[in-house]
Amino acid sequence: MGFPINSYTRSGEIYSRALKVIPSGIYGHQGPAEGCFVPVSAFPFFSERAKGSYFWDADGNRFIDYMCAYGPNVLGYNDEEVDEAAAKQRAKGDCITAPSSIVVDFAELLTDTVASADWAFFAKNGGDATTLAVITARAHTHRKKIVFFKGYYHGVAPWTQKVDYPGILEEDVANNLYVPWNDDEKLAQVFEENKGEIAAVISQPYLHGNFADNQLPAEGFWQKVRKLCDDTGAVLIIDDVRTGFRLDLAGSDHFFGFEADLICFCKALANGYNVSALCGKDFLKNTLSGITFTGSYWLSAVPFAAGIACINKMKRVNLPKLLLEKGTALKDGLIATAKKHGYDLRVSGAPALFYLRLADPEGGGTPSLMLHQRWIAEMVKRGIYVTNHHNHFLNYSLSDDDIKTTIEVADEAFSVL
Amino acid sequence: MGFPINSYTRSGEIYSRALKVIPSGIYGHQGPAEGCFVPVSAFPFFSERAKGSYFWDADGNRFIDYMCAYGPNVLGYNDEEVDEAAAKQRAKGDCITAPSSIVVDFAELLTDTVASADWAFFAKNGGDATTLAVITARAHTHRKKIVFFKGYYHGVAPWTQKVDYPGILEEDVANNLYVPWNDDEKLAQVFEENKGEIAAVISQPYLHGNFADNQLPAEGFWQKVRKLCDDTGAVLIIDDVRTGFRLDLAGSDHFFGFEADLICFCKALANGYNVSALCGKDFLKNTLSGITFTGSYWLSAVPFAAGIACINKMKRVNLPKLLLEKGTALKDGLIATAKKHGYDLRVSGAPALFYLRLADPEGGGTPSLMLHQRWIAEMVKRGIYVTNHHNHFLNYSLSDDDIKTTIEVADEAFSVL
Repeated sequence: MGFPINSYTRSGEIYSRALKVIPSGIYGHQGPAEGCFVPVSAFPFFSERAKGSYFWDADGNRFIDYMCAYGPNVLGYNDEEVDEAAAKQRAKGDCITAPSSIVVDFAELLTDTVASADWAFFAKNGGDATTLAVITARAHTHRKKIVFFKGYYHGVAPWTQKVDYPGILEEDVANNLYVPWNDDEKLAQVFEENKGEIAAVISQPYLHGNFADNQLPAEGFWQKVRKLCDDTGAVLIIDDVRTGFRLDLAGSDHFFGFEADLICFCKALANGYNVSALCGKDFLKNTLSGITFTGSYWLSAVPFAAGIACINKMKRVNLPKLLLEKGTALKDGLIATAKKHGYDLRVSGAPALFYLRLADPEGGGTPSLMLHQRWIAEMVKRGIYVTNHHNHFLNYSLSDDDIKTTIEVADEAFSVL
Repeated sequence: MGFPINSYTRSGEIYSRALKVIPSGIYGHQGPAEGCFVPVSAFPFFSERAKGSYFWDADGNRFIDYMCAYGPNVLGYNDEEVDEAAAKQRAKGDCITAPSSIVVDFAELLTDTVASADWAFFAKNGGDATTLAVITARAHTHRKKIVFFKGYYHGVAPWTQKVDYPGILEEDVANNLYVPWNDDEKLAQVFEENKGEIAAVISQPYLHGNFADNQLPAEGFWQKVRKLCDDTGAVLIIDDVRTGFRLDLAGSDHFFGFEADLICFCKALANGYNVSALCGKDFLKNTLSGITFTGSYWLSAVPFAAGIACINKMKRVNLPKLLLEKGTALKDGLIATAKKHGYDLRVSGAPALFYLRLADPEGGGTPSLMLHQRWIAEMVKRGIYVTNHHNHFLNYSLSDDDIKTTIEVADEAFSVL
């Protein structure tokens, strides 16, 4: 017992100012309006600084951070190796009329690293990559329909949204087909019912939706999907934006024993420097060359320098192995601590991106959202930044001591529930 | 006579490597596939470094740069004031789980600076801002149709493209209406024919299309558009991505004497640091708060610090006045030099974003694309980076000597035509 309880006075004051000049105050996945911070009062709204596995909020509270900026922070905040490479490039130039040749170095490194990458195309948002993937698949196949797995997230472009969302039209999603995750029979049926009309299947490597246990692929599932695509000429798009490099440096498709036709990267690509990538197979390269797709900062050099340093360091330290070990130790420790207090903590997804859910102690595994939220709140108020409805992210700089502290805080949080 | 002629051996070698691992080698508006570099042999493909008004290519050739990275470079490359503010923020943190409070400072500065901005929402691409503007207009009006002016460019999202572009569906553009620029009678007719169905008009503040003289608004045009929107409840969206801050720090709508409902900024916002913004009126703030729109790096702190420093410096030096003066001196000098050699150089658009076209010397103003391209090639080969089909961009660090050199090179380029 005895971890100090945070207060968030200054965060609250800044949030009041924010509400006047920014819609929602804080928007999107980092904002309370999205429900990320339920119960809101337990979470800090604004950060002041960050280093390694920690960030400090506007009130000076320190957090062991298990969200890693929702993914980009893969080596630790302000990693010296990455920051030095970026600073060196910045002194030469960043966003210039003619691109720096470092874009070629980065593309060569990615095609050497990622098993299914014959080429690389760089942009800024994960959603730029998923949108370009869908356009490329449609241009290549001259077909319209795209298969999604229910519970998907592929960014915020209109084609990824739902028709009942504000401002989204039925035309935006008119060619979307939805299939339950891991249901290869239903998928085969949808292909049969839409013969010759399916341009692509787009999917995360495993299902990491919100407010639900994450689900790994069933044995042989990916091989069946791959075969259906091959048999029908549909393009297989893997959205590796969240999972990329955390499971396997050669791509999460490689991790699960298959090859994508197009694979989308973003978050862990450059340790927080602003870049995303679409990589793919040679047979789609010419098609993509004919598509007009560009943006103001897409060939800026600094994120490429950061990306090269980030990938080289991830390789050198064997990041996926290390995150698996850290994630497994953390997961086992949290489950055992819960059990000690009579609680049933379910941890799903890959250990490097663990999803937490506290089940009803009396209910044989039934979810207990309120209980779970209360526990998460007790963790966050004591400086462990976890969330109640989203997968988490580990990073290289998280220490064994950090994990030990996390489990000690969990012990106290369970005891006060 | 006697300016040295550039050669591009190393650029060519790098481009050969690029073609193997990047679709098109260099893609988008910075790539030769888009026709930016016609005639290709005159232009450098890759840069090595940049400072102030110059960049140096991979072969060490120096250019006085009139493209400014297609806009972002508004103060000069590696502006020390902006870079220092960015570096200070980077030492604290950039892309963090909870956003830095500097996002609020930036939003407050923008709402203080831009006349039609009651709030600000930040993203990464100009296209993120235009897409969010269209979604917001549709959500607010519960209508589908969007009016474009022919010759428009609002990014590369599917809704902005043409149905005959690869991978674009008729559904993507099913609700687009097209009206000729400056034609308020046709616009009124389109509103009449689509009564109660038009969600928004989206437009640049003036027409700055490619391969065509740029066209300023006719007297009273914007006031008529504004009234049509007011009378019908349509949202008026101004795409100030290229022109923003170069005409008027209060927005290009303010410059032309009207107020937009939504205004999109990007390029000149942070001197090359990666940020875009949608600003707008209070009556749309709640609607936008209900829209799910976010991205991995959208609340990163470093570009906000750069943006604050950039806007403060643009205010202090009265950037629009200065760019008007530099642009006018350059334009007058180029036209006079052309005339001296018997050529008819047409300069259109705002002087800060001048568009060049060499007319047929015998043809009474008829465009002469081949002659123009040859002249542009002679300029670029002598270290003046201009282009043959796109508006140009001026920046603060461009000196009177740079302008003098540019006119001297133009003199030589006309003499060898």
